[in-house]
Order: sequence, then structure tokens, then C-alpha cells
Amino acid sequence: MTGRANRQVLLAELPSGKLTEAHFRSIVTEAGEPGPGEVLCRTILLSVDPANRAWMQGATYRAQLAAGQVMSGFTLVEVVEGNQTTIPVGTVAACEAGWQEFAVLPANRLMPILLRGELTHHMSVLGVTGLTAYFGLMKIGEPRSGQTVVVSAAAGATGNVVGQIARIHGARVVGITGSDDKNKMLERDLSFDGTVNHRAEKLRDDLRAICPNGIDIYFDNVGGRVLEAVLPLMNTHGRIVCCGSVSQYDTGSPAPGPSGVPGFLVVKRLRMEGFLVSDFAGEWPAAQSQLADWVARGQIKVIEEVIEGLESAPAALIGLLAGDNVGKRMVRVGPNP
Amino acid sequence: MTGRANRQVLLAELPSGKLTEAHFRSIVTEAGEPGPGEVLCRTILLSVDPANRAWMQGATYRAQLAAGQVMSGFTLVEVVEGNQTTIPVGTVAACEAGWQEFAVLPANRLMPILLRGELTHHMSVLGVTGLTAYFGLMKIGEPRSGQTVVVSAAAGATGNVVGQIARIHGARVVGITGSDDKNKMLERDLSFDGTVNHRAEKLRDDLRAICPNGIDIYFDNVGGRVLEAVLPLMNTHGRIVCCGSVSQYDTGSPAPGPSGVPGFLVVKRLRMEGFLVSDFAGEWPAAQSQLADWVARGQIKVIEEVIEGLESAPAALIGLLAGDNVGKRMVRVGPNP
Repeated sequence: MTGRANRQVLLAELPSGKLTEAHFRSIVTEAGEPGPGEVLCRTILLSVDPANRAWMQGATYRAQLAAGQVMSGFTLVEVVEGNQTTIPVGTVAACEAGWQEFAVLPANRLMPILLRGELTHHMSVLGVTGLTAYFGLMKIGEPRSGQTVVVSAAAGATGNVVGQIARIHGARVVGITGSDDKNKMLERDLSFDGTVNHRAEKLRDDLRAICPNGIDIYFDNVGGRVLEAVLPLMNTHGRIVCCGSVSQYDTGSPAPGPSGVPGFLVVKRLRMEGFLVSDFAGEWPAAQSQLADWVARGQIKVIEEVIEGLESAPAALIGLLAGDNVGKRMVRVGPNP
Repeated sequence: MTGRANRQVLLAELPSGKLTEAHFRSIVTEAGEPGPGEVLCRTILLSVDPANRAWMQGATYRAQLAAGQVMSGFTLVEVVEGNQTTIPVGTVAACEAGWQEFAVLPANRLMPILLRGELTHHMSVLGVTGLTAYFGLMKIGEPRSGQTVVVSAAAGATGNVVGQIARIHGARVVGITGSDDKNKMLERDLSFDGTVNHRAEKLRDDLRAICPNGIDIYFDNVGGRVLEAVLPLMNTHGRIVCCGSVSQYDTGSPAPGPSGVPGFLVVKRLRMEGFLVSDFAGEWPAAQSQLADWVARGQIKVIEEVIEGLESAPAALIGLLAGDNVGKRMVRVGPNP
């Protein structure tokens, strides 16, 4: 099956400041053919994540992205053709096919999907962002009934699920976003107990007012001044789940670190811990079953945005970094099987 | 026994910048008499600790010190007189009698000492600073053979014991101090595997060179730019034990927080955790037995400075904050029993 046209979006240039559409370039090439042990995949859905921008800043848990490469990204794909593999054609799988319509990948890089409900759920609540919420909150946050859980980027793909899981465990949940509209949605649709807008001048005062018993768990997606505002409000032996620092990704000049580190960690005996969802890969199936069950019972509402067309991906990512999204943002590259 | 003269050192004024002797005032009053359930104690040794300065900055795990009060401090005392208590006269105990020759305290504030070796050891390796080293390293750091442990303020009362305990557990130990003389002592007398002077211009490069396999555990006594230099050198799943931030105590204008927080915590899945030795009070006796055993076997060398006379206490603390001390600094207020 040669000659198949393959639209790709390249990272044409590494950004030194804010990311713009000029940093990307769209081309059409020919899809390759799978070698032994490889598969040819057709992209169905492309995940749009803050981490995409972090990968451009330097080496993280992976090498820095390079100018000229196909932009990297998580995807749901359908296997179109295999070469000496046991994965059947037609299999739907999660993998990192990048920003392109077709990709040739080693078969062992694919995680076949056990379809539960909507396919899009495997990008959101059952996908990396939902699992990130689950493992970060349950393994590091360890929520208990009656405790106060604060989550930043609370209307984001991970944040909204963190809040909903915390509520299921009987915690009082406060969300931080940069938008009053998002905050209304969180309180009205997802039953958050309270919300705060981080653009408010007196962020710390607002937080203190809505967390009269202090904060036991802070699930931090943003870092920076929000983290700094939270620190003095933490209760003794509180936990800070370090999931990301999106406030520092889309800039060439990261802010200084949060004052109060390590001072408050000592006097309040706080634990601040980072994690990657891949560290818990062996526990994904059990977590996905639990999450799917909560969705089926209506205890987790799934908040998603599906943007049509691969060519929309650069704008979708740029908008995400500016905080435009509500829930899990993804790009539809091709139809469901 | 009224009429007993009691020399006291008062915190005359709260410092707004660097601490000086002018912030203290020495007076002589009359020692009080113990009420029911109280004891009159005679101070033998007074502990000089960086925390003394932190208590002046604001509320921590205790209320801020107030101008005009007897300066607070940990002590070893002898019970001189009791009133309706079961503690015998002559008992030697640890307590917080403050900077004075005599104190009246509720009997239940005294922790009687089971004397092991030198009395001064109960201020150093068997006292709060030695226990702090033990619990911070063992409970949060969790050292394993072959790992690299870095400790700052490494010649200090806590730091030198951290390094020695880490070596006992088979770790490679690197100390950070602000003095080449201290570093020589650590390598020569305490068998540290390497040392770095934090006043060096290329602190991070020096650290990288001496930690070719990265850093698994960083025991942080100082915070600030040393913490910032260590962060990118931490290994995946490394632990940062937050014990104090002495670099930020003796100033009216604390530095910004360490850049790289929370970024490195996420990508390297670091755990950064504060603690207070009092959280482990139930385990003190067992830890003291272990520490005394290591001392008896020569596996821990005890490094102490005993400065004579209560009137020397202000200068002793000011010098400590400037990094003058080697090992545990204490003031002898009265003779051993």
C-alpha cells in the first residue's frame, strides 16, 4: 500500500518565547511501509497537552524536540497494515504517532484499547490525563474524607478529573482557574465546593477565605505564583502533588521559584512530590476499570473538546497554553473505525 | 530557697536585618519558686541552634519570639527543687529552660536523661541535632548502599552526623560547606568521600564533577541557591530532605525561591519533604541507643564546641549564623552535676 498521502505538521522552529503558528509547517509526504515487526497506523484522535510545549524547552523525561521533526503527540490510532506482528489490522490502540495522518511504528509501541463507551473517553478520562489525575491524587495526595483538596488548572483535562475523584472520596474540593466562566461550570456542573480565579489581585486572601480549615492536598498543575500563594495555607503534614508547571512552559524567561520553598516544607512538614503517569503503567488497567465505573455511575462527568482537522492542531495547542480549553482538548484527525 | 540570683539573657529587640549583640540584654533577677507540679532547674548546657534565629522571624511550628522575653533555647538542666512532683532532685533532664541560669518549669516539660557517655553528647549526637540527622536521613532520605548522599551545612551539628550515618549505610557522601578548612576536616576526620565549597563560583559544576552518578538524596539544611544548584543533578526518584533553610534566617529580605521548583520535581519524580524531629518523639529512645552504639564503636565521631559562660551566648549564636561553628555548638552555663 505505497503512495498513500500523509499530511504531517512539522515543528519548523523551536520557540524562544511564546509559541505561535509560525513555528509549525504543514507538508504532505508519502506514508512509509512497515518493516518487520512494525505497523502502519492511521491517526484517529490527537491529544493536545501542555506537555507538548514543555518538550520544546529542553530535555525533560525525554529528549528535547528538534526543529524540522514531525511534532510529537499522543494519539489513538487504527492499525492499517502490519508486517510480521500479531496485532490484527483494525486494532485501535494508544501510542505516540505524532501530528500526522499516518505513522509507521514498532508494534510494541502500541497499547491496544479495550473499548469502554465513547472512543474519545480513551483520550480523556480513561487516557493519560485521566490516569494522571487518578494516580497523582490517589498515590501522592492520598485524599481522605473531610479533607480540603485544592487543584489548579481545575477546568483542564487533568484538573477536572482530580476534583471529581476527590469528591468521590468525600473531600471538600476547591478549584483554581483563570476564568469566572470556568469556575461557574466547575461549581454548577461538577459540584466543586468552591473556586477561585487566579487572576484576582488577592489570590491568597481569596483562597484563605474559601479554605477556612486550611489545605490538606494541593494538586499543582501550574507552579509559579499560584503555588506560592498556596504554600502558607497548607496544613501540617499536607501533600503537594507536582503534576506540571504550565505557567512556566510558554515563555523564554521562567519566573523565579516559589518563595516559601523550602521554609514552609520544614515548619509544616509538607511533602511535595512529582510523578509521571508512566511510573504506574502496570496499574493502568485497574485504574481504567475504576474510572470507567465512575463514569458509568455518573460520578465522573466527562468534559471534552474535539477540534476538527489536523490543520487545527497548532492553534489548538496555542489556545490551550493560553487557557482557552475546558476539559480534555483533542483534535480529530480521522473518522472512528 | 528564695533569693537565688538568676542571670538571664533577654531578647531585647527583634532583629529586622542581621542579628547583633545589641538585640540582647543581660539582667540579674531572682529565681522563682516552683508551684505545685513544677520544678526549679539549674541550667548546665545551653544549645545554640540556627532555629533560634528562625523563631525571631515569625510564627513557625511555634509562636514568634517577643521582644523583652528571656531568649528561648534548648537546655540540659539539673533539678534543684520540686513541688509535688515525682522527679527526684538531682535528675538531669533535657528541656527548654531558655537563656538563664535557673528556670521554673512544669515537671512534665522535662525529659530525664539516661546518661550514656559524656553529658555533652546529649546535646549533640544524642540530642536534638543528632536525632534530627537520624530521622531525617532514615525516614525521608532512606539511604541505600551505593547511593550518593549530599548534605549541606555538612560541618554543622546535624550535617556532620547525617554524613556519618549515610556512610554507615554504604552511601557515597559529599558535603557542602562554606569553608575549605571545614571541608578538609570532613574528608580527613570523618571520611567524607568528597566536599564542595558553596562559595565557589561554579557550585553546580563542582557538584556535578564530584557526583558523577548524580545525587540520590540531598539533605538540605540551607535552602536558597545551594538547593537550586542541586536540583538539576538529582536522580530520578531522588529524595530531598528539607531540614532547614539557614541561608534565609539571618536576613530581613529572604531570597526568591529556588528556580526548578516544581519543574524538576515533575520530570525527575522527586520527593521533597520537611519534618520536625518532634514528630518522631516516640522513637527517640531507640534512635539514641543506635546512635550511642555507633559512637561507642567509633563509627560516629562526635564533633562539638563548648563555649564557656551564659554571657557568651549572643556571640555564639551570631557566629553560628555566620558559619563559624564546627559541629555542635553549645554554651556551658553551669558545671556538670
